[in-house]
Amino acid sequence: MNTRRMVLLTEGYSEPIAAKTASCLLRYCTDQVVAMFDSTQVGKTAQDLLGVGGAIPVIGKLEEAPTANELVIGIAPPGGRAPAAWKPVLLAAIERGMKITSGLHDFLGDDPELAAAAAKRGVQIVDVRKNDERDVATRQGLHDKCLRLLTIGQDCSVGKMVAALELANALKKHGVDAKFVATGQTGIMIEGDGCPIDRVISDFVNGAVEKQVLANQHRQVLVVEGQATISHPRYSAVSAGLLHGCVPHGMVLVYEAGRTHYSGMPHMPLPPLKRVIQAYEDLALFGQPAKVIAVAINSRRLNEAEADAERNRVRDELGLPAADPIRHGSDELVAAIEKLRKQVCG
Amino acid sequence: MNTRRMVLLTEGYSEPIAAKTASCLLRYCTDQVVAMFDSTQVGKTAQDLLGVGGAIPVIGKLEEAPTANELVIGIAPPGGRAPAAWKPVLLAAIERGMKITSGLHDFLGDDPELAAAAAKRGVQIVDVRKNDERDVATRQGLHDKCLRLLTIGQDCSVGKMVAALELANALKKHGVDAKFVATGQTGIMIEGDGCPIDRVISDFVNGAVEKQVLANQHRQVLVVEGQATISHPRYSAVSAGLLHGCVPHGMVLVYEAGRTHYSGMPHMPLPPLKRVIQAYEDLALFGQPAKVIAVAINSRRLNEAEADAERNRVRDELGLPAADPIRHGSDELVAAIEKLRKQVCG
Repeated sequence: MNTRRMVLLTEGYSEPIAAKTASCLLRYCTDQVVAMFDSTQVGKTAQDLLGVGGAIPVIGKLEEAPTANELVIGIAPPGGRAPAAWKPVLLAAIERGMKITSGLHDFLGDDPELAAAAAKRGVQIVDVRKNDERDVATRQGLHDKCLRLLTIGQDCSVGKMVAALELANALKKHGVDAKFVATGQTGIMIEGDGCPIDRVISDFVNGAVEKQVLANQHRQVLVVEGQATISHPRYSAVSAGLLHGCVPHGMVLVYEAGRTHYSGMPHMPLPPLKRVIQAYEDLALFGQPAKVIAVAINSRRLNEAEADAERNRVRDELGLPAADPIRHGSDELVAAIEKLRKQVCG
Repeated sequence: MNTRRMVLLTEGYSEPIAAKTASCLLRYCTDQVVAMFDSTQVGKTAQDLLGVGGAIPVIGKLEEAPTANELVIGIAPPGGRAPAAWKPVLLAAIERGMKITSGLHDFLGDDPELAAAAAKRGVQIVDVRKNDERDVATRQGLHDKCLRLLTIGQDCSVGKMVAALELANALKKHGVDAKFVATGQTGIMIEGDGCPIDRVISDFVNGAVEKQVLANQHRQVLVVEGQATISHPRYSAVSAGLLHGCVPHGMVLVYEAGRTHYSGMPHMPLPPLKRVIQAYEDLALFGQPAKVIAVAINSRRLNEAEADAERNRVRDELGLPAADPIRHGSDELVAAIEKLRKQVCG
């Protein structure tokens, strides 16, 4: 029996980009979700709002999910701050004895009112981004018996975590001992371990990533969850530290078809995929040579025919295997990984 | 009358690389330093140990500097932790009513014993790296009436801060309204403002840098203090965020002649200068085009003849103006900056 029964709080933000955390938990921990909480959307289903999660209901009162034992903040807003209007829901959940899980930059456990309520009720508040990483990278001890893959992207929120999860799961189905290495709050909620590197003090980002890799090198393949992009006006620090902390053998590029500008920055056009690939491959050389070996397309804005056309266009333009892992499956991408694994690991 | 009378604590680490903070305060705030504290080197002078500071004495007891009103931690060890053996000196300084200033990652103010002693004596503990930066970059509001220069490097501790200070000071002497923009603890101690970006949460590094630039754009030239290098196994996160946060118009490359491996990483050879330049210029393009316009050589390991030969070698190899600003002066570098300023600012 599975004892985790989550309600995903997405109040007022129940659309796929803002509610990224909820969408991903619905996709990868479906059996553990009992409801979404959005009082503005009561009566709809998760599938209606986020395109995933089937008949899981949207509720407006916690009483409607009497078996729930955990309230998870289901959104990841820019800057990571919790809307103040959520306080009553959080207090009600604590009152019901529910565990609170949050990936926000604003730690809920630091809120005196929430902390006091949780202590009184004996309820745990888990701030997934909390960390005390203080070790610098060593660039020692990494070996070639374990293939290190990194998903990289053209922007934030394009599907780097989804691609990494899909690839790790597909590799497992092919009998490979693969692990998804979570580097963000949602990935950590799904995988149960990892490091929230965008919350790590910048001096220690490379070291925090390296530590995750060293701890899991007994696996055959590590698929490291990418963050942002090396070209990002806001978050390139995170991406650079991730690249040089995990020193990948190969990379999988992820992008969203139809996106033209950085998410949340309508004045900033995205660079072409070729330039992103070039920048990552050049910068990877300071660690060890690593090529982009495949492309994971996020084709959520396209219909079937458009998605197939896009896939062919990208294969031609970049000369790389390409697929939307959700729509087309991961076979073509997994073949590219297995080819690289033979070269690297023998 | 100058009221700041510092003792620089370098106990057991009184050599130029480890005692980088002390060396730089001795060079740029000479009149405000009354002594170095290193009980293993009593009787020597600052000049003897660090090659700067003239007759400023090295003491082993605070009583030997009766006028001192501030104790500054003068070293910047990897990882930024304070040696436990320093506690008695810190407590003695507090007891004498001295302000404590530290740039370590370990905040002295968080030490209950020190905090209690300081509170009791009414003494301030200033942890320069402490910050609560939580804003993402906007990439808006930057303008071309103020020239933004960034010093970049081949490694940590090669002289990026010194070069930035020398260039800002030389520009001021030429009648230019220039400002040194401090991005590290020592620079902040010298300049009196800035942001310790290696201590900022990685998501907010680019934003913290951008904020420093926006606040100072009324100047004619900003010389932004570089951090680490984009190729650094440990600290590339910091360098990438700095580059994309300040979006420079031009860069000045700094390196130490004779250094072959990353500081503190004898297993990691340094990349050639040309590759460092290429990587920075490529990555800068995601903001705006910016070239390396000059090279600042740190020739401390060389004699005069060797330093001149190195200067000519670098001019030839890279086709750029080059000088050790300490040894050769900054004229050649300032000319390159003024040329760029005419192109950018009209």
